[in-house]
Amino acid sequence: MTLKLVELCGVDPEVNFSPFCWRIRMALAHKGLDYERVPWRYNEAEAIKAYGASKVPVLLDGEKAVNDSWKIAVYLDEKFPDRAPLLGSEGALGIARLVNNWADVTLVLPMLSMIAADVVGHLGPEDAAYFRKTREGFLGRTFEEARDRRDLDVLTFRKTTLLPLRLTLKSQAYVGGSKPNYGDYILFALFQWCRTVSPFKLLAPDDPIYTWRASLMDAFDGLARKAAGFEV
Amino acid sequence: MTLKLVELCGVDPEVNFSPFCWRIRMALAHKGLDYERVPWRYNEAEAIKAYGASKVPVLLDGEKAVNDSWKIAVYLDEKFPDRAPLLGSEGALGIARLVNNWADVTLVLPMLSMIAADVVGHLGPEDAAYFRKTREGFLGRTFEEARDRRDLDVLTFRKTTLLPLRLTLKSQAYVGGSKPNYGDYILFALFQWCRTVSPFKLLAPDDPIYTWRASLMDAFDGLARKAAGFEV
Repeated sequence: MTLKLVELCGVDPEVNFSPFCWRIRMALAHKGLDYERVPWRYNEAEAIKAYGASKVPVLLDGEKAVNDSWKIAVYLDEKFPDRAPLLGSEGALGIARLVNNWADVTLVLPMLSMIAADVVGHLGPEDAAYFRKTREGFLGRTFEEARDRRDLDVLTFRKTTLLPLRLTLKSQAYVGGSKPNYGDYILFALFQWCRTVSPFKLLAPDDPIYTWRASLMDAFDGLARKAAGFEV
Repeated sequence: MTLKLVELCGVDPEVNFSPFCWRIRMALAHKGLDYERVPWRYNEAEAIKAYGASKVPVLLDGEKAVNDSWKIAVYLDEKFPDRAPLLGSEGALGIARLVNNWADVTLVLPMLSMIAADVVGHLGPEDAAYFRKTREGFLGRTFEEARDRRDLDVLTFRKTTLLPLRLTLKSQAYVGGSKPNYGDYILFALFQWCRTVSPFKLLAPDDPIYTWRASLMDAFDGLARKAAGFEV
């Protein structure tokens, strides 16, 4: 039975601008699993209700539906233990959950602020209105206000917000050590999300994070690099 | 050959107020290793110079000296693979390094700010002067100014700075999952450091982090709870 991944997209189904879906696309590639992509848009709430989901990604494995990127990653390691492990031990899984929470709490909002204005043009009118209403609420400002300050915001983002990741990548090639694991995909997916919709340069080329991102864009035969997106 | 741990202390050698040393005390206990504690104070730079160290902890294993808490933790797992693993796999080690950097970059400074004024009374005059001069430089304010604002600072610290840890401990008992690993000790050591010297309450009793801290204070026959310190 082929796995299916219900994935957020814009008007163009190839514009996949969800960091949470990108975590799972990288995870599925890491495990060498084939899957069918099912495009989903914000206005299609009904289509995933039957899976107990109000958001994507949703992974469909025959009769089983798993939603929430973290739960899907855990499921993939449990269901396919003979494939390359995403985390591989309870201890690694435990610590990765902290990294997942750190990313979601600390990185997502400043990144959204810098690219939100660029998302709108990829969406149909109904999705654009929904996206603007909900996300401007999270940000506490309009997308245009957010865009106007992003040249300044990115300096703090690089220097302070990303510092723990930068220090890590100064001493090892990947979050996972000498090769990537799900700890990498948790964070890489955020950068991939941004470049899908925005030409804004979140990273300077002399940043070890830039080099790491480039390497993960090339992984799995260039899965992320070949996907719709901007050169950043 | 008995291991030796060179450890920061106050006038009273039982006042061990270094988060980095506490990481290693918990790590040594986790691995069930005996060791001799060697007290060290800031004004004893000469005593550790021969080990290539300017700071503690320094672990002495016969002729070998290892300094820097992260390197010591890695060394312990490599040197004693038959003992309970602190991390146990390259993937776990890799991700833990990110947590270590997150803790050092994001948590240490706000915690220092809240407890620094309480450290001074535990130090001899020379160490107190050194500590004040260097740490007030890091903080950008005097210890007294820092103490005066800590009742407000702690609210942001709890709500925002600790949120990734809190979310993690809402879904699992320890950073390591169902049992503690070095990911826990990285963070627990910061709280233990503070309670060694300060009665200031960093955590509210209804916080999952409070429960987790209490559980780790009880670990290893109450190693941390029995150590010199305040009820917090």
